[in-house]
Amino acid sequence: MNVVDLIHRKRDGLELSRDEIRWLVENYTNGAVADYQMSAMAMAIVLRGMTARETAELTLAMRDSGEVADLSTIAMAKIDKHSTGGVGDKVSLCLAPLVAACGVAVPMISGRGLGHTGGTLDKLESIPGFRIDLSLAAYRRQVAKLGCALIGQTRRLAPADKKLYALRDVTGTVESIPLITASILSKKLAAGLDGLVMDVKVGRGAFMKTLPEARALAQSIVSVGRAAGLKTSALITRMDQPLGVMIGNALEMREAVELLHGRAREDLLECTLALGAEMLVLGGQARSIDAARRHLEAAIATGSGARKLRAIVEAQGGDPRVIDEPDRLPTAPHRTTIRAVRAGHIHDVDALVLGKAAMELGAGRARTDDVIDPRVGIELCVQRGSRVHAGAPLCVVHTAGSAEPIEVEVLPAFVIRERKPRQQSVLVERVRSSDRRLR
Amino acid sequence: MNVVDLIHRKRDGLELSRDEIRWLVENYTNGAVADYQMSAMAMAIVLRGMTARETAELTLAMRDSGEVADLSTIAMAKIDKHSTGGVGDKVSLCLAPLVAACGVAVPMISGRGLGHTGGTLDKLESIPGFRIDLSLAAYRRQVAKLGCALIGQTRRLAPADKKLYALRDVTGTVESIPLITASILSKKLAAGLDGLVMDVKVGRGAFMKTLPEARALAQSIVSVGRAAGLKTSALITRMDQPLGVMIGNALEMREAVELLHGRAREDLLECTLALGAEMLVLGGQARSIDAARRHLEAAIATGSGARKLRAIVEAQGGDPRVIDEPDRLPTAPHRTTIRAVRAGHIHDVDALVLGKAAMELGAGRARTDDVIDPRVGIELCVQRGSRVHAGAPLCVVHTAGSAEPIEVEVLPAFVIRERKPRQQSVLVERVRSSDRRLR
Repeated sequence: MNVVDLIHRKRDGLELSRDEIRWLVENYTNGAVADYQMSAMAMAIVLRGMTARETAELTLAMRDSGEVADLSTIAMAKIDKHSTGGVGDKVSLCLAPLVAACGVAVPMISGRGLGHTGGTLDKLESIPGFRIDLSLAAYRRQVAKLGCALIGQTRRLAPADKKLYALRDVTGTVESIPLITASILSKKLAAGLDGLVMDVKVGRGAFMKTLPEARALAQSIVSVGRAAGLKTSALITRMDQPLGVMIGNALEMREAVELLHGRAREDLLECTLALGAEMLVLGGQARSIDAARRHLEAAIATGSGARKLRAIVEAQGGDPRVIDEPDRLPTAPHRTTIRAVRAGHIHDVDALVLGKAAMELGAGRARTDDVIDPRVGIELCVQRGSRVHAGAPLCVVHTAGSAEPIEVEVLPAFVIRERKPRQQSVLVERVRSSDRRLR
Repeated sequence: MNVVDLIHRKRDGLELSRDEIRWLVENYTNGAVADYQMSAMAMAIVLRGMTARETAELTLAMRDSGEVADLSTIAMAKIDKHSTGGVGDKVSLCLAPLVAACGVAVPMISGRGLGHTGGTLDKLESIPGFRIDLSLAAYRRQVAKLGCALIGQTRRLAPADKKLYALRDVTGTVESIPLITASILSKKLAAGLDGLVMDVKVGRGAFMKTLPEARALAQSIVSVGRAAGLKTSALITRMDQPLGVMIGNALEMREAVELLHGRAREDLLECTLALGAEMLVLGGQARSIDAARRHLEAAIATGSGARKLRAIVEAQGGDPRVIDEPDRLPTAPHRTTIRAVRAGHIHDVDALVLGKAAMELGAGRARTDDVIDPRVGIELCVQRGSRVHAGAPLCVVHTAGSAEPIEVEVLPAFVIRERKPRQQSVLVERVRSSDRRLR
């Protein structure tokens, strides 16, 4: 086989065979296919697309580019959640312990933040001492013991994805449903899961800006996941405004802990319960979504979710006291309150503007090698629909320095009008899997 | 400016600005834009295309990536010919001295063969001692003195093209009219020409397989060339059968010399005269195509073309005796005659099959670093329309070894049928330039 012939085939709109796709992924992983050849192929895929069959073959070839974790000795159903990323999206931090507390294992391999969106690993690392670099053996042991481990991507799982993702990032080939599907699912399949619930975010602060795009990605992931034998379902959730009140790593960790203690803004709670209920149903721990929600609400009310997070933090070397004393999380030395210049109703809190502002404060990365500051971020005082008077606080900005020009960055995120806007639910749509295995 | 943004723009079908294209070419030439980024861009260009304006800007940016030869002190019009490549295409070897003998300077910068098509440089180097690596200063002096120099591409002219061409070759991005146009014209513009006649070959043995493709390329080159201030015209010529009787480097050199002595097969003579007439008209040395042809025919009849080639060979270190004693060219030690298995008329002599067979004998390169053997090749005894008896010679294969399995490679190229096929002219179509400068 010859890589130029394969590029020609894809360039000319033909379908690649299973053998061609496996050959390509193997030879890209071992270096025989050069980056400059793979980037031309990636651009051809972006512009010509891939059939569902090709996408599934690509996913499986990428899964098989490294080790596949074997969690089969763990009796519990193993279900993960993955989000396409948003601003203030700390759902994983509260969802994983809650679901584990309800008897479904959550072996969660997360990523870091890039651009205006945050990453679960960065948020976890705001806990003093917390380690995300467990070995695969330690990961397996912890999932067996606690029903949950929260770790970072390792080189041993789906190395083809790691290499291809870095390449796509610098070659303008990120925006491709087949490539995104294969990237997400290859890692999840390599992690040894039984099922996956996707949170496909849609809106200004999300990767998918429109509902048709979000739907296409959700459906691609659900069908390729199922074809690969993974129980898969997807929710499409709104990401025009930040989720919850906190943006920034330690701030979001604190908000997640507060949720487990029964104190959460409704949008964050709703998103967490909706995704958690899907996971319990996929994992066979609840007969219906309603029953699953009651189960999760009980895990909050009884404190079993908070206890689970404490055990996970302790097992992974972190200071477990942060769960009951969140003031032990790092805090920024400076706080500035941004205030409304006029009275009215909040019509918009722009997630993209605030995500970028938080990134510039140091909460996120413009480039993968940027160093983040866990302490900084933005704490919202209002949400869409809030009534404010002139001078009322809109948000508090937590900064490392005292003289950062933050107001000019942050204020445009808030749109204030006379009349009250209509309510919007965080959950937009649900794409659920049957257990039927598609081929 | 950011290369990923530029890739996004092209990927999404937008037009790149002059500044964006110049920035891209400059930064690719100096290495700030990586090969893996340029190959993604090239694939986006292949699939999204470029407007005439973008193609012209790309051409000029590539011209300006290195030195631009200044031939303005040479009073004669300076006109070159460029072919898209074919099998047995030795036209440059006889055309350049003929046109120079008629008073139009031919500063010709040629390439090497790749795949089934031959290259002018390889053919010239079959002359013992011939040097193609003149400095730009020596090239300029020789054009001033003899009206012609035949050299290879130097690193100093259009280095962006050299780098991009090598990349396109290994990334499946060769087939793009804007990229081919910019590649050809950037080098020609950097060479200091006044005018260019393009020979766009069409057919099985050519790069462009169909007339619409060939026409699109011819028109692109003519309009971009004119927009850049170059007098440009194009002929579309047939490349289903090999041109002339010889395929292979020394063999083709010999055939070119024979033409200058007045002995040539009609298709080769016709192609040479048609292209040469365009050059004389563009160069202002003839009022009409007919007058130009008579001028060229006289240069053959009087031997002034042969004398010009002798002077060029001598000036470039080659053995000038090959012009009158072509047996001094290297010859292969073994010859095998391939014979007709039945009687009839030759309906086809497949250029692609014979080009590939000659390449495998060692006359061409499968990869750019392959070493060629100047002696080997194929000498045709028939052409389309020839009447043959069973056992009549079809061709003689010149080989380095004695036991090469050549018959099985070569015989399928010849199709023999009962009835006589209709004649085909080598010249298909003419796309001529006005002197009007388009903007």
